[in-house]
Amino acid sequence: MKDGGFAPVPLTNVKITDDFWSSYTDLVRNTVIPYQWEALNDRIPGAEPSYAIRNFEIAAGVRQGEFGGMVFQDSDLAKWLEAVGYSLATHPDKDLEAIADWTIDLIVSAQQDDGYINTYFTIKEPDKRWTNLQECHELYCAGHMMEAAVAYYEATGKRKLLDAMCRFADYIDTVLGPEEGKIHGYPGHQEIELALVKLHRVTGEEKYLRLAEYFIDERGKSPSFFEAEWKRRDGISHWSKGRTPSPDLAYNQAHLPVREQSVAVGHSVRAVYMYSAMADLARLTGDPELLAACQRLWDNVTKRQMYITGGIGSTHIGEAFSFDWDLPNDTVYAETCASVGLIFFAQRMLAIHPKSEYADVMERALYNIILASMSRDGKCYFYVNPLEVWPEASDKNPDKRHVKSERQKWFGCSCCPPNVARLLASLGQYIYTASGDTVYAHLYIGSKADVEVAGSNVAISQTSRLPRDGWARFEVNVSAPTHFRLALRVPEWSEGDVRVMVNGLAHEGTVEDGYLIVDREWLDADIVQVTFAMQPRLMQAHPNVRADAGRVSITRGPLIYCLESVDHAAPLSSLSLNPQSELRATLDDGLFGGTVVIEADGVAQNTAWGEDELYRPYAPESQPAKIRAVPYYVWGNRGTGEMTVWMDAGEVATDVRLQLRHT
Amino acid sequence: MKDGGFAPVPLTNVKITDDFWSSYTDLVRNTVIPYQWEALNDRIPGAEPSYAIRNFEIAAGVRQGEFGGMVFQDSDLAKWLEAVGYSLATHPDKDLEAIADWTIDLIVSAQQDDGYINTYFTIKEPDKRWTNLQECHELYCAGHMMEAAVAYYEATGKRKLLDAMCRFADYIDTVLGPEEGKIHGYPGHQEIELALVKLHRVTGEEKYLRLAEYFIDERGKSPSFFEAEWKRRDGISHWSKGRTPSPDLAYNQAHLPVREQSVAVGHSVRAVYMYSAMADLARLTGDPELLAACQRLWDNVTKRQMYITGGIGSTHIGEAFSFDWDLPNDTVYAETCASVGLIFFAQRMLAIHPKSEYADVMERALYNIILASMSRDGKCYFYVNPLEVWPEASDKNPDKRHVKSERQKWFGCSCCPPNVARLLASLGQYIYTASGDTVYAHLYIGSKADVEVAGSNVAISQTSRLPRDGWARFEVNVSAPTHFRLALRVPEWSEGDVRVMVNGLAHEGTVEDGYLIVDREWLDADIVQVTFAMQPRLMQAHPNVRADAGRVSITRGPLIYCLESVDHAAPLSSLSLNPQSELRATLDDGLFGGTVVIEADGVAQNTAWGEDELYRPYAPESQPAKIRAVPYYVWGNRGTGEMTVWMDAGEVATDVRLQLRHT
Repeated sequence: MKDGGFAPVPLTNVKITDDFWSSYTDLVRNTVIPYQWEALNDRIPGAEPSYAIRNFEIAAGVRQGEFGGMVFQDSDLAKWLEAVGYSLATHPDKDLEAIADWTIDLIVSAQQDDGYINTYFTIKEPDKRWTNLQECHELYCAGHMMEAAVAYYEATGKRKLLDAMCRFADYIDTVLGPEEGKIHGYPGHQEIELALVKLHRVTGEEKYLRLAEYFIDERGKSPSFFEAEWKRRDGISHWSKGRTPSPDLAYNQAHLPVREQSVAVGHSVRAVYMYSAMADLARLTGDPELLAACQRLWDNVTKRQMYITGGIGSTHIGEAFSFDWDLPNDTVYAETCASVGLIFFAQRMLAIHPKSEYADVMERALYNIILASMSRDGKCYFYVNPLEVWPEASDKNPDKRHVKSERQKWFGCSCCPPNVARLLASLGQYIYTASGDTVYAHLYIGSKADVEVAGSNVAISQTSRLPRDGWARFEVNVSAPTHFRLALRVPEWSEGDVRVMVNGLAHEGTVEDGYLIVDREWLDADIVQVTFAMQPRLMQAHPNVRADAGRVSITRGPLIYCLESVDHAAPLSSLSLNPQSELRATLDDGLFGGTVVIEADGVAQNTAWGEDELYRPYAPESQPAKIRAVPYYVWGNRGTGEMTVWMDAGEVATDVRLQLRHT
Repeated sequence: MKDGGFAPVPLTNVKITDDFWSSYTDLVRNTVIPYQWEALNDRIPGAEPSYAIRNFEIAAGVRQGEFGGMVFQDSDLAKWLEAVGYSLATHPDKDLEAIADWTIDLIVSAQQDDGYINTYFTIKEPDKRWTNLQECHELYCAGHMMEAAVAYYEATGKRKLLDAMCRFADYIDTVLGPEEGKIHGYPGHQEIELALVKLHRVTGEEKYLRLAEYFIDERGKSPSFFEAEWKRRDGISHWSKGRTPSPDLAYNQAHLPVREQSVAVGHSVRAVYMYSAMADLARLTGDPELLAACQRLWDNVTKRQMYITGGIGSTHIGEAFSFDWDLPNDTVYAETCASVGLIFFAQRMLAIHPKSEYADVMERALYNIILASMSRDGKCYFYVNPLEVWPEASDKNPDKRHVKSERQKWFGCSCCPPNVARLLASLGQYIYTASGDTVYAHLYIGSKADVEVAGSNVAISQTSRLPRDGWARFEVNVSAPTHFRLALRVPEWSEGDVRVMVNGLAHEGTVEDGYLIVDREWLDADIVQVTFAMQPRLMQAHPNVRADAGRVSITRGPLIYCLESVDHAAPLSSLSLNPQSELRATLDDGLFGGTVVIEADGVAQNTAWGEDELYRPYAPESQPAKIRAVPYYVWGNRGTGEMTVWMDAGEVATDVRLQLRHT
């Protein structure tokens, strides 16, 4: 098995020092992680209880009680612990580490003699282990705890949870697999596959990789494991407790062997977690079929089924992809976790082959979905990330009940908040990759990184003014003159208009796969400065996207913009943006500590119709209106109101006189 | 109790002789009624079984077996029988009457000793009668059978079913009512209220009217009957067989006493059936509070929650109204039955006070929803009447699974087809009303009617060229010179441009409540000719209707038009109509035997984007396109494809060059 040349930059080697992002990573460290700890301990007044710690205490025998919450409740604690690991990697904190150690002791004391860890089955159905892989998330929870174990080990060097999870993985390896006597199955919710790759990375243990490969290879084979399992449990569902129809295999991406899949279907989080593991394995094994499947699925997701915000999943029914070009803005799902998984997938694709399109998508989802999902104080979250909100519709039309117009404190199914926390806490892992003699800068985020490239250690200090201005600066520190290539992503939004200066002199680099190459022998304190065109842009969607027909959206750099009713006379749909209008980007100092807003000219329909008029002959009465767009990531932080990303394009003349002849 | 001066024109006195409508009423008589008889007998290959006849045979003890279908399956047979009654009233048919008599014998032989008729409870849960009024449709089925009994009696003079239903009504009157020892309840699905008014009309029996009033008056009182009933059955639902949360009272319009209701909420068919009964009672009792509630609810339904097609009900969840201005085109419900009920409501409001707005809505729903719901051969039906269809979305996005792109043969819940049949079979009842010295012509439908007005019998022969041309002609035949007023509705779509000639001379009549009055002493063979402006119109929706923002629809006379992809390059959303374009109405002789289509100029977006482009900077590339609109009522008869009623308005210049400055 070959590595493909990819070397992840260890998180301990990257420290975020960004004017924009540090406020978020600080928020995660100072607020989100402590707040979620309170949530996991059921101490947030008014929020739905988590039960996560309580369940482990019961499973460990130190507390009496019933299991609480969902069958996958353990994973919330695991994701939180993973975030703690990442946080400690860059910001050691004795108190936090003590809490984590206490938690790990608790988790390990809930481990069964054979290595098994899962509070639901331990407390509630100890004799039902491995009987409902399709619905019951045993392997999913195991995977998340493995990820936590790896993160915590890498941050602290402490092996307790890692060893426990290796024991669990060893046990799982005795239960599932191709050999006679084992269950020939795979998880209902993919996750353990990518976790096993991580476990392999830190332990060097080949069997973990083989088990991940087994789960990927076995999936979707015919006859179907899920159908056989469903028959074995007499069709009884964990969820309804009653008989259910035979499994919808596409929901779990088990409708076809993964190598034959070309279109993203089913539950979107499961899909992108699986694609991430497929990409990991394609990189490590060099399997061309697996790689081709990854590329097809990447293209399908990002070129047919992705919202402009980086959201994926068009329907709340099954939290799922629907089909190509179907991107409704108001009944959207676009779950936060799905975009987290999309970022994982992009990161793995970059590791195989650095192409800027992967990093463009990563950046799109980060700046828009990930940041928008969290309130400015880090305490409330969107699970669904709509592109169009009419609060009254969310309240009164049950088709939109899943679309919340306000971020929620905590969820009964609270997968998203800790997923955001672990992603932001590990943001440093997404900025650079090194491969051969090249350091790739994928993200323009102020940071100090120690990178090993071409056999040398190189320190790179990045300063970035994104998203406010299209400007970044790299200082390279080397102990001796060192030859390597610094590959700077040319963002899609710059439309190729990028200027590079090296030590104050213009540099004409070649562009490879969307990266501008600065190829030189670096001297200590060399400075590379990059300037990107970053004018506001009016965007349109492919005409096959019915939901966006006749509409435009505003973007600037990596940020998607939106309109909110607090800045306009409602309804927002009565506004049209004149596509010939100048888009004026101005800094509003008073808005969230300084935010670039974009103003443009448009028209507003006259909304003063007669009381009795629901329909009337077309005779637009409109007046000039100012359009004021704010970044999508800040929406919903100024009270409840309407919001839209896409807006009508058109200049409606007030003097149109219809000249219709009688027929 | 006073009558308010309203005299319904008996159906036996009106014969449809219309170039346009006769084809539909003939279709009902010659095809729909026989086809539905086959369906009710489970003899349509490939269609879902009805079980309706079979259930009655089992309940009557002439067949062994289990109850089949929904708890309200009896109502399908009742509605069919009512349609048969209407058909026989105008077109006697010995064979059909023999089938109906056989059916009535069957129904009556399933009647229990105490008068009870309901096959579900008789076969399946004889000890559970009246224990779940909220969910189990006992009174609903009773109401439909009463309507059938009245229709059949009025057509044939045969009393067997009428007497049976009076016995049933008498029995119901002993079970429910205000008196001590009776259940103080009311139906979950309103229907019996308006049926009891009819039973009162033909029998003169006051207690049927009092029972209808009781159901209306009791509804929505606090504490809630439905909540108490739900507790008595331990919260067990008929539908899920499990415990359910306490009833959603608004779903059944039982959240407030009816006199306090102002906004249409809940299941839309239940709502409009109830409003119809309220209007009946307001007319008969002169109750000003009830009348005011009817007027408020009428205004809310038709001026805030009605699609331009005359469809009502914005969400499939609960088949319900959602809220003011919420009229999504693609996730719409707009159930056929709801528009049938809206026509009932309009008819009742006209009977109280002839105002053209009521008849305008009646006409809108008739020409658009009712006709569209049925295939051209009368054998397939839409339950949901969308304003926008993307067949792939109906297949692959579960949010739109209820929106069918093709009419269906028969439904498991098959309320709509027989509802359309009974409405069309009784169309003659909707054309005229007579009140005092005035005959109101509400609908322009060719017909021969004998009307009693101002104490005289008047024969009115109407000829109409609607919907092809805005022209109608009335010949009045009287045996002696007779003074009365002929009130001709000035349709909303004529925009007041109506010219009337009496015996060839221009007539300037006054307009009262939207009716142009021809007030004269009529001589035999007097001729009134009416010409309406009927140019194609471009319509827009109130700016509060977010779903229609920036969009227009085409209408001509009473017909709403739509685009179908069979006439255009898909996707339809890539087309824009130039609002300054002339709308050209032309007769297409080849289209369904001659249909007026409307052509206009527009532009089509270039759909040839690069394979990788999902979003790109706005730079519209469009070319001129012909828009060809067909009447909504014919949609979906030329194969499966996209359809839309609302289309983008705007002329997108191809030479727009965006002048955006860098910021």
